[in-house]
This record gives sequence, structure tokens and C-alpha cells, in this order.
Amino acid sequence: MADEDVQAQGDRPWEELQRILDDKDPSRVEAFLEKTQPGEMARVISRLSEEDQAAVLHIVDTEHAADVVELIPEAQASRVIEQLDPREAAEILTELPSNEQADLIAQIGEEGAQAILAEFEPAEATAALELSRYPADVAGGLMVREFLSYTEDQTIGDVVEDLRQNAEKYETYDVQYAYVRGAQERLAGVLRLRDLLLRRSERRLGEIMITSPHSVSDRATLEELRTFFDEHRFVGVPVVDEAGRLVGVVREAAVEEGLHERSDSDFRKSQGIVGGEELRSFPVLLRSKRRLAWLSVNIVLNVIAVSVIAYFEDTLAAVIALAMFLPIVSDMSGCSGNQAVAVSIRELTLGIVRPGDALRVWLKEVAVGAINGIVLGLLIGVVGWVWKGSAWLGAVVGAALFGNTVVAVSIGGLIPLVLKRMRLDPALASGPILTTVTDMSGFFFLLGLATLVLSRISTG
Amino acid sequence: MADEDVQAQGDRPWEELQRILDDKDPSRVEAFLEKTQPGEMARVISRLSEEDQAAVLHIVDTEHAADVVELIPEAQASRVIEQLDPREAAEILTELPSNEQADLIAQIGEEGAQAILAEFEPAEATAALELSRYPADVAGGLMVREFLSYTEDQTIGDVVEDLRQNAEKYETYDVQYAYVRGAQERLAGVLRLRDLLLRRSERRLGEIMITSPHSVSDRATLEELRTFFDEHRFVGVPVVDEAGRLVGVVREAAVEEGLHERSDSDFRKSQGIVGGEELRSFPVLLRSKRRLAWLSVNIVLNVIAVSVIAYFEDTLAAVIALAMFLPIVSDMSGCSGNQAVAVSIRELTLGIVRPGDALRVWLKEVAVGAINGIVLGLLIGVVGWVWKGSAWLGAVVGAALFGNTVVAVSIGGLIPLVLKRMRLDPALASGPILTTVTDMSGFFFLLGLATLVLSRISTG
Repeated sequence: MADEDVQAQGDRPWEELQRILDDKDPSRVEAFLEKTQPGEMARVISRLSEEDQAAVLHIVDTEHAADVVELIPEAQASRVIEQLDPREAAEILTELPSNEQADLIAQIGEEGAQAILAEFEPAEATAALELSRYPADVAGGLMVREFLSYTEDQTIGDVVEDLRQNAEKYETYDVQYAYVRGAQERLAGVLRLRDLLLRRSERRLGEIMITSPHSVSDRATLEELRTFFDEHRFVGVPVVDEAGRLVGVVREAAVEEGLHERSDSDFRKSQGIVGGEELRSFPVLLRSKRRLAWLSVNIVLNVIAVSVIAYFEDTLAAVIALAMFLPIVSDMSGCSGNQAVAVSIRELTLGIVRPGDALRVWLKEVAVGAINGIVLGLLIGVVGWVWKGSAWLGAVVGAALFGNTVVAVSIGGLIPLVLKRMRLDPALASGPILTTVTDMSGFFFLLGLATLVLSRISTG
Repeated sequence: MADEDVQAQGDRPWEELQRILDDKDPSRVEAFLEKTQPGEMARVISRLSEEDQAAVLHIVDTEHAADVVELIPEAQASRVIEQLDPREAAEILTELPSNEQADLIAQIGEEGAQAILAEFEPAEATAALELSRYPADVAGGLMVREFLSYTEDQTIGDVVEDLRQNAEKYETYDVQYAYVRGAQERLAGVLRLRDLLLRRSERRLGEIMITSPHSVSDRATLEELRTFFDEHRFVGVPVVDEAGRLVGVVREAAVEEGLHERSDSDFRKSQGIVGGEELRSFPVLLRSKRRLAWLSVNIVLNVIAVSVIAYFEDTLAAVIALAMFLPIVSDMSGCSGNQAVAVSIRELTLGIVRPGDALRVWLKEVAVGAINGIVLGLLIGVVGWVWKGSAWLGAVVGAALFGNTVVAVSIGGLIPLVLKRMRLDPALASGPILTTVTDMSGFFFLLGLATLVLSRISTG
């Protein structure tokens, strides 16, 4: 933390960058970017206004601009690129690996993306557009088009010659295999580069390749890909389209990155950041609008839930102390239910539970819910008793929390399965549904029970 | 979903496995495992009791057992392995890649792990123990020990000969580099295998290697590793210890997997699954105990929070309708605050915010909180007004929600930074702290304001 204190006294790096930007001297901006630690780049750039972020990309050469784009978060990069002249944007995008390029094109609005693609070479534009149309979480969206491929007739000598001639182009290729295409561009075989070391250079690839190689469909999901890499210790796997044509290579790292992004996104969605990633450098009104969309749904659900309380106004009027336990029952049931939601989402992800396993999930949750309900119910019951001196009040509060804990874990365990079966997003919708239902049942248990024994507890 | 319906009528795979297990015929269990889809394995195994899970590993040969261990979740695998005879457990662990082996050893209790390591070859045991002592989220915990390494004096011919002789052993090695060791086993250079294709076999590695290669410290964090791979398009990077000795290789995929696991774990922690991963196949009492540890903290915090309400019992007694708005203010503030928590945790992870940036975070949150507070306050104010026919009640409720939304986003935005500075886990503690503080301030705003204008609203 010491470095921050030093920075606070001196010039902050983004203030320095801001000043250099004002001078409009490309080489000084480039020098600044070069001396900036890669891990610092996102922080420094995010401190600038979006106009200035675009100005940085505009003033430096394409290579530096591409480096910056790779180091800042994608959500930020796509916003900045949209502000550039399409030709400039196209030049920067061309420097990126094909999958990162496609991700950014998919994130930029339709219109902006078309203007940028119009500046690509026609063949490149078609390829980029095709890639960007794959969902981000299937093999087609995760694969790169940068890989080595040859035909069956070529020899080891041809491969070596190709490697020699294109050494620079292949510099950033990170596969250790070469793929062999057969008739109709179909994937026919695979070669490990290290095996080429052991062979004579006249050998034709068709003779020495591993035939019927493992491959995945361009529609393979993240789960399928992860299972594939769990089973096979490969660095990458070739991707084929419906016709069996080799269209790309998915690296294991891309699969893990995709899973990581999905987890992060699930986490954010469960916390109410639902309109896509939010960074604080985004405009206030955009952030506010997106957050409000979620909050408005929740406030409506809240009003529905508390309407239960309105039915019991007389009971509440007779025993004001109950008002204190309404938020406790609501919050504690939410806590218990969320634990069950988390375990269900995890088990769905791991593939050890499916929507059809509802009965098993419910039985497993009820057992835990009953034990925890008894403990929590006793705890809060004692609090109620001691606080208000009424054993009956304690019993009502304890019984309500016990009952609602069982309801909460049941609903929490099942909602993700039901949402999954309905092809809805468990991370997104489980929380609000859980809260609304358990609030209603909790208020009903507490106030309903209190009403039943009203004469016993209203004496206090 | 059709397949589940079919299964429901016929024999479920785990019931079949259960039956085969009873016959105690290894070859039939092995045949069953072979026909089971890799993506199904975790689900099928998790349906068995933990004793039967151990029985499966016990009855099949080591290779099949290792395959099962790799396909089921780590939390489950470590529990099952603990139940095996140490010699058997050691045999299975020896079949796993060094990093997976180390992860499992780290998860198994101290005593069990020592018994298992006693069955390893002494050198292997030392190596495995060293690896297992690295935290799981630094380079040492992520690296594998399976890599190619040679000395500077060796020639390309030696490498080719080594690859030929150890083809089987290297089968599952997934690096495309060979590392060259200099004096004192220090990392001296790196060779790309494809470059060997372009050279004559008499050349000494010391002459043709890339000197001063990139490497990372065995203490490098996930963030540092990710930044490294963002900057360099490598598949793997060599890891060196304090003395500069080559100790392993971290693959990019392992880094992404580590980040993914951490995100999943953060998600679970934020939902109250805090004692490590929970699967429903774990014993009920263990699940219950772990969940209760978290719930007990929350119930205490809840009681503290609602004690604010006790100070205003007279106001509540005068205006029972306020009781309905207590849970709404509590829940909506929680929602707004959680959004801010999520953005802060995300920005901390991306490295664009640090604990010292509290002022900036607060200013950015207050802007959004004020806008959203006005909108939500107006909404709930109108509800209060229409429902109870009292404009004053509406004003009190609306103003309380406005004020508390601003408080909630401020606290939600700052808590993760404060926890991070205190070296505590933001994902774990942000939620309960946020809820407690915003509940207290929300109840105080609502009931305090109502008390101030009590004569206006208690007429209803």
C-alpha cells in the first residue's frame, strides 16, 4: 500500500498521461505506454474520460493501440473502439487474435461493426463476421483461426519450409499441432510437431498423420469442451463445422477463460448487475438506467410480498413487537434459501444434478433445512422470549422461522432446476423469486401463528 | 430432457452400477466406467454412498480409478481418497498430473496425507509435499512438474533421441517448449520445439536457445500470471524459485482454471456457502454445521439491526402501516448496495480500482445512488400515498428509501475496498456487513422521519 501513498503525493500516472496527451506528441504517449506496467494499464486508462481513452488509441501507432486494447477490460475496449474512425478501428482490430477480434465486433453495436468491417479486406471481413456470429460460449466463439494446416499430399519437408518462410507470422501461433486437410477441406488428420522431428523429410503427411483425430463441433458448449479437456490432456482441439470442415482450434485456456467469464457474470447477475458488465468509468446515466431496470422489478416484488402483512394489521397493532421480527424472518430465510440456490447452481454446473433430479434435491435440502430451522428457531425464540418476556411470543417467532427455513431451502434448492428446465438463467432470476416467495410465506407464518394465539401474546 | 424420462422408467445408471458393485467383479465395473460418458461420471458417482464411491475406486485397476478421480469434483475426490487404504490411494495419486496430485494432497487432512505420502517413492513424496505446500493460487500451486528440460551442452540430436526413447512418457506432456538448465540448475534458456525442426542436429542447445527467457516466480499471483499471459501469447511459462532454479511450468489454462475456481468460490461465499465447497452427497450433519456457522453470524447481526426498531415502538404503534415498509426498505437497500459491492469486487479483480481509490469510488456511487434513490423513493412514496391515502406517509417512506439508497451504494461500494485493505475477503464479508449497516440506517431513517412528522401521519 506504500506505493499509493507515494503516488498520492506526487503525480498520478493518469494525470501524467493526460498532460502528455494534451501535447499531442505520439512518441511521448507511446513511451508512456511502454513504461506502464501491463498490470497497471487498465487502471490508468480507466481514469481518463472516454474521449481521452479514444484519443490515446488515435494518437499512437496501431501496434501500441492493439496492446492497450488487449490489456483493458473488453467492455471498456468495445466502448472506446466505437468512438474511433471506422478505418482506425479496423486497423487496430486486425492486429488482434481472431477470437478477441470477434468478441469485440460482437460487442460493438451492429451499425458500428458494419462500418468497421467495411474497412477490412473482403475475405477477412467475412471470416470475422462469421466468427462474431457464434455465441461466445460455444466452440465457434472460443476458437482461433490461427493454426497450422496442410494437405495430405504435402511432405514433412514442405512443413519445415513453410515454418521457415513464415516464422514471423507463426510467432504468436500457440498450438503444438499441425492439422491435415483431406477432400472438401475436411479434417483428415493431426500431426504433433515434435513427431516431425523423428521422421524423414520426404514422408508425406497423409502417411504419418494420426488419422480420425479427436475434434469437436463448432456448436460444442463450454461444458462439453471442459469434459473433453478433462478426458484428454491436449492443449487444443480442432473444431469442425457440420460438413466436417476444419474451421478453427479451441485451446484449453480459452475454455477455462470462457468458464471464468461466465462465473464472473453469474456472480454479478446474482448481485443485481444484469445489463452486462458495469465499470465506474461508464456514463452515470447508463449505469443508473441499467441498475434501475433490476431494482424496479425488485421493488414491485417487494410490494407484492409485504401485501401479506396488510392482511394482519390487527394482529400487528395488538403485538407491535412482531414488527421487529418481520425483517429478521425475511432476511434469515433469504440467507438459508441463498445457500441452497448456491449449491444447486454449483451442482448444475458440475453436471451432478439435472432438472429431473428435483425430488432428490428436495429431500437432501429438507434434511438440512429441518436441522438448521430448529437451531435458528430456538435461537430467535429465546431472543423473543427474553426480550419481550413472553414465552408464547418466543414460540411463535421460533416456529415461524423454523417453518420458513424449511420452505426457503426447499424453494432455494429447486428454483435453479426449474429455471434451467424453462431455459431461463438460474443466476439471474433465482434471487428475486426466492426472496419474494419466502418473504410472503415468512410473513404469513409469523403473523398467521400470532393471530392464532393472539390472546396469549397480546397481554404483554 | 427426453432421456431423463426414459431413464426414469428404466434402470438408472447408478442403480446399475450399484448392482454391479455388489457382484464384486472388477471387469464388469471397469466395463461400466468405460461405457459411461465422461460428462456423466460425476453425476453417476455422486449418487452412490461415500462407502460405495470408495468401493468403486477399490475394485477397479489403478488406471480406471485415476480416470474417475479426474472426472469427479475435487471436493468429492479428496473425501473418497481419504477412505481408501493409504497404499491404494498412493497408487491412484501417482497416476495424476503433478498439480492435480498436489491439490488433492492439500485437501486431504494432514494425517491422511502423510500416510499416503509414506507409500510414495521418497523423492516423489518430497516433490509432491513441496508442491502441495504452495497456496493453490500462486504459480507454485498451479505449475506442473512434467516438462522437457535439458542442459546447455546437449545437442539437438540428444533432444531428438530423448523424445524418441521417452515417447510414451512424454505422451501427455503438453508444452511446446523445452527448457535449458545452466549452472546450479538455473533456467538458462528456452527452445521452441518447432525451431528444432529448422536446425542441424549437431548444434548445441546453448548456442541456439533463446537466452534470458521469460519466467515467473513461484510466488507469482493469479493476477500477475494473467497479466503475463495477456501480454505474451505463450501457452506456458517456466517457474523459478528464489535461487532462479527451474521448478515447474505454468500453463495458461491452469491460470484461467484457477481464476475460474476463485470466481466460483467467491460466488458461493457471497451466497453463504463459506466452509469450502458443498455437494449434496456430503453427510447431512457436515452440510448443516457448515451452513449454520454462517447463519448464526447473520442472525446475531439481524438482531442487532432490528434493535433500532425497538427504539421507535411508540411511532410504530401509532402508524402500523410503517411495519409494512420496514422489510421493503431493508430489502431494497440490500439490492442497491449489493450492486455496488459487485462492481467494486469486479473492479478490484480487474485491477482498475485499489483500496486507496475510495474517494473516487464513493463519488461515482453517490451519483448513481442519488438518481436511483429519487426514482425508487418516488415509486414507493406513491405506493405509500395511494395505499394509505396519506401524502405525508408517502413522503416519509419515499425520503427514507432515497436516503438509504445513497447510504447503501456508498457502503456497498466502499466495503470491498476496506476489506481488501484489511486483507479480509470481500466476497465473504461484504454482504453481511452491508445488510446490517443499511438495515440499521434504513430503519432509523424511516422511523425517525415518521416520528418527526408523527402528528401528520398518525391521523389515518
